[in-house]
Amino acid sequence: MYIGIDVGGTNIAVGILDEQLKIIKSGSVSTKAGRAYQDVVRDMAMLTFDLMQQAGLPRDIIKWVGIGTPGAVDVKEGIVRRANNLRWNNAPIASEFKRYIDKPVFMDNDANCAALGEFVMGAAGGKHSAVVITYGTGVGCGIIVDDKIYSGFGGSAGEIGHMVIDINGQVCNCGRSGCYETFASMTALVRRGSAAADANPLSAMAQIRDFSEHLNGKTIFELAKAGDETALTVVKQHIFYMAVGITNIVNILEPEAVVIGGAISKEGEYILEPIRRHVEEYAFCRTLQIPEIVTATLGNKAGIVGAAVLPDYQ
Amino acid sequence: MYIGIDVGGTNIAVGILDEQLKIIKSGSVSTKAGRAYQDVVRDMAMLTFDLMQQAGLPRDIIKWVGIGTPGAVDVKEGIVRRANNLRWNNAPIASEFKRYIDKPVFMDNDANCAALGEFVMGAAGGKHSAVVITYGTGVGCGIIVDDKIYSGFGGSAGEIGHMVIDINGQVCNCGRSGCYETFASMTALVRRGSAAADANPLSAMAQIRDFSEHLNGKTIFELAKAGDETALTVVKQHIFYMAVGITNIVNILEPEAVVIGGAISKEGEYILEPIRRHVEEYAFCRTLQIPEIVTATLGNKAGIVGAAVLPDYQ
Repeated sequence: MYIGIDVGGTNIAVGILDEQLKIIKSGSVSTKAGRAYQDVVRDMAMLTFDLMQQAGLPRDIIKWVGIGTPGAVDVKEGIVRRANNLRWNNAPIASEFKRYIDKPVFMDNDANCAALGEFVMGAAGGKHSAVVITYGTGVGCGIIVDDKIYSGFGGSAGEIGHMVIDINGQVCNCGRSGCYETFASMTALVRRGSAAADANPLSAMAQIRDFSEHLNGKTIFELAKAGDETALTVVKQHIFYMAVGITNIVNILEPEAVVIGGAISKEGEYILEPIRRHVEEYAFCRTLQIPEIVTATLGNKAGIVGAAVLPDYQ
Repeated sequence: MYIGIDVGGTNIAVGILDEQLKIIKSGSVSTKAGRAYQDVVRDMAMLTFDLMQQAGLPRDIIKWVGIGTPGAVDVKEGIVRRANNLRWNNAPIASEFKRYIDKPVFMDNDANCAALGEFVMGAAGGKHSAVVITYGTGVGCGIIVDDKIYSGFGGSAGEIGHMVIDINGQVCNCGRSGCYETFASMTALVRRGSAAADANPLSAMAQIRDFSEHLNGKTIFELAKAGDETALTVVKQHIFYMAVGITNIVNILEPEAVVIGGAISKEGEYILEPIRRHVEEYAFCRTLQIPEIVTATLGNKAGIVGAAVLPDYQ
């Protein structure tokens, strides 16, 4: 049995996996971000104990524990060097966790763990390299090269959300102008959707926005599919922006597969078809073979699965 | 003894390297690009024979031969899948070369070989990962990860010149808009220099351009250093564009070192200082540690050295 723990800014998710990497029991508690790392680690351990008990499993059956956390993770030392959203600096998570469960503890960045989950058990299963891009509030990414997580020299690689794609673009929270995530994140989609609704007050999108005061990525896609021209223009533009960044990554890394994660992955072929067409038209490797471009399949379980298999892929 | 061969669009350079990887003899002949691969390979072999003879070395002393060529190289099969500037498609270079010298032949892309040369014997010696960016007519790149060349799934990785940094920018020869090389190549520098000279006819840059009808990267840098305001503005802008792309790469790959190659590397600290400052201000890893940013040291020998050491780094 393996334990996979996915620490997010909002929730801590824990899963118990069997030898076939099937999640046999999982649960989550609130992270309450901003607390001292000791408090968060205690909650991680307590939830693990609870789940073991619910599953009727003795503690000794655990072979190892994998933990994914936001921020820059010192994989060798098991220390989170810096995680802004948790307000941790040099937090020794692995050693702290071992005070509760004295088994080998492996750690990596949460985006890397989610990527690894998709790589091992999800959309990129059977490949040897993949880039898994998660579109959410920002744009996160995990890179797998030669069956290993690629973390970069100090654990900060894969920040493709902060790749400038418009040198004259709007200022990003990282300080640069025109970062990919200011174009392709769900936040950016909703922002452009809202602006388009303002500009087209008779559109279905404007009416729904004004009625429900709530416009999210899913609504905008639904409106586009239902034939609202304003929403359709926004959605087409959004898919184009997604494709520009993906083509950049294909030109730089030429992975075997690109996996699109986050809530937008539910759109499936509706986004995949135009993105593939863009990559086929513009990627440098187009005359040979373009990477497989697919949507993620594990949803929010990817982080747990990836954390649980860390030792084989670090 | 090892043979390193660097096949370019203009010249074929061959070097004989001793056990300490010192080039003890080297020479070059014209590639005459556009010829059948058999003719080019014959010239590669004949030049090798010549150099061996000049050095008084028997053919049997060769341990292996490394060959770097432009284009997408199938490293395992020793086949150039596609090299536009040589007009080769599926050219079986390794097997053809063995008809002349029956020793193990290793191949890779020329940019990868040049990067490897700098990695092993040049600016990034002693590191475990590096991105070597060569600024010339275009922008080429070689990526080394965990002491191995990273070629991508089909051998087309590292095309950072075709990373869009301005979604509204001018059309690149690859078909995309605002590629990095339309901003940061020497071609782009000269184009902007020429436009600035047009706009400022009284500038020293305009006068020199009009007098000699020749403005190149070196002249523009010299004029900037000599105090010509027009040239200085162009150069500052150019360094900024270089830095934007380098910061993108640092955010995506966070290598241990970034090596700047091509003729512009001769500008040394004059370009390094502002580029480092930009990366320190904007890279995602800035609160931890930024990669070492240095200029290449091997010049046009990097390709030969890298080719000769290929088997240890593929």
